[in-house]
Amino acid sequence: MASSAEWVAVDWGTSNVRAWGIASDGSQTFTAASDKGMGKIARADYPAILSELVADRFAGGDIIICGMAGARQGWLEAPYLDTPANLNRLRAGAVSPAGADTRFAPRILPGVCQRQSGHEDVMRGEETQLLGLLAFQPGFEGTAILPGTHSKWVEIRDGKIIRFSSAMTGEIYEVLSEHSVLRHSFIGERTGPETEAGIADGMTAGLEQPELFTALAFRTRAAALLSGKGPDWCSGYLSGLLVGTEIGGHRDWLGRDAVPLIGSARFARLYGAALTKLGMKSVPIDAADATIAGLKLARAQ
Amino acid sequence: MASSAEWVAVDWGTSNVRAWGIASDGSQTFTAASDKGMGKIARADYPAILSELVADRFAGGDIIICGMAGARQGWLEAPYLDTPANLNRLRAGAVSPAGADTRFAPRILPGVCQRQSGHEDVMRGEETQLLGLLAFQPGFEGTAILPGTHSKWVEIRDGKIIRFSSAMTGEIYEVLSEHSVLRHSFIGERTGPETEAGIADGMTAGLEQPELFTALAFRTRAAALLSGKGPDWCSGYLSGLLVGTEIGGHRDWLGRDAVPLIGSARFARLYGAALTKLGMKSVPIDAADATIAGLKLARAQ
Repeated sequence: MASSAEWVAVDWGTSNVRAWGIASDGSQTFTAASDKGMGKIARADYPAILSELVADRFAGGDIIICGMAGARQGWLEAPYLDTPANLNRLRAGAVSPAGADTRFAPRILPGVCQRQSGHEDVMRGEETQLLGLLAFQPGFEGTAILPGTHSKWVEIRDGKIIRFSSAMTGEIYEVLSEHSVLRHSFIGERTGPETEAGIADGMTAGLEQPELFTALAFRTRAAALLSGKGPDWCSGYLSGLLVGTEIGGHRDWLGRDAVPLIGSARFARLYGAALTKLGMKSVPIDAADATIAGLKLARAQ
Repeated sequence: MASSAEWVAVDWGTSNVRAWGIASDGSQTFTAASDKGMGKIARADYPAILSELVADRFAGGDIIICGMAGARQGWLEAPYLDTPANLNRLRAGAVSPAGADTRFAPRILPGVCQRQSGHEDVMRGEETQLLGLLAFQPGFEGTAILPGTHSKWVEIRDGKIIRFSSAMTGEIYEVLSEHSVLRHSFIGERTGPETEAGIADGMTAGLEQPELFTALAFRTRAAALLSGKGPDWCSGYLSGLLVGTEIGGHRDWLGRDAVPLIGSARFARLYGAALTKLGMKSVPIDAADATIAGLKLARAQ
């Protein structure tokens, strides 16, 4: 018989929500997921969605939540911790939303913000993954990269987020490929090895001239018109260009140590390849693993 | 009595078409416009749209057309001239589409392309404006900027387009402000002088760190969340950032001479302000004036 969940770890993002039942020995007893992310639901919907996710598999106790549920437009605002933000104080900044099943004790962890004029930035969820990084690499100091819709570059010293920078890499790919003139270059069947060639071409261009991103992006279209590049190459080129631009623009954040890449396997591969071109090593860390590890440490704080 | 049109100058773009009747002394006898740009019509529609625009004000003769009517998906493809492209040979590369009213002799001027691998680029319409620049500044050599949806930076030597670079400045503004997370920061009433402050902040950031555009763009959102910046400041910031990034990324294209800025008054002001920050002078040239001057010179070739 499976052990029962002592508490539940929850990652409530903009698009999706995921929950993991955690036994007293730290093992997972169940996982649950839904597409009812913060962006699709109203404040009043949270208690019912949470119950739907966990009620039949969890008798009651702590529910530790990170992510957009703590945004102003989420379930209950968990005010940001300011940089330098101590990752060992996430639990202390958590808020307790009302309205949940009385058997549950939900706590929403805070995000982190950087208020310096000219460097304003925000994160919600990544701070928990970074706490998870400290579980995997105790005492880690340096820069970690969390690739994604809004990639984060984060400098950590002495258990604190010292500074960070968000790049709209994933989202710029989406809006350009769907809504700009480049969309014409993405129509057609995707076949063959041309995607890899496009990634390599775009990555080199972005790493070498990140300051020309808005011009190099147009090359997607021009290469389709002039050099007969197909949708495979074009989608690879735009991905590679965006990743190369992000990394090329943030080069002075990189030291000599291997860079933790917290994200999907696909992103770890892409970013790892770009870092290799710069002579750097990287360490892929699965995003969900980092989130769960971070929520565990936060609960114990 | 107004003099009659000897010929008609036409700028057939993606979104709109404009026509000017030109008398034998070079003066304009009429202007006409429609929103039937290349992007909205089929190949077979061109003759009727042209007749609708000019038939009741033009007895017959040459109609010189530049722009997207000559694209592959336009009225009739006018193959690109390759760089280095001699602006005095535009007329020689023109094509004559069939199907027009027999009183009319339409000619579509070619665009210009740059085929070098890694630098593929295309223009249609701007080459005619650049020929117009040579009417206003005979013997011009150096770099001209044509700000817009897809801004062009063009180096001209000895009457030829030597090289050029397109930046997706205007289009990236559109897609980010309408389709990305930044759209939340553009909702609300636009009032007051905050737009100018946003433009100045964004322009400085882009000029100083064009390599960080994909990160600095996210600051639009973070500044709205953290520093209470309103839609005015945000729209100004994103505009200024894009213009600053474009100019900052292309700095090595600039010499010491005043830079022709061929475009709208609004763009001339924005780009002129950014160039001033770099200690450079600029000369605004109205886009329509440049197009008409270029079509006149092309007809005389």
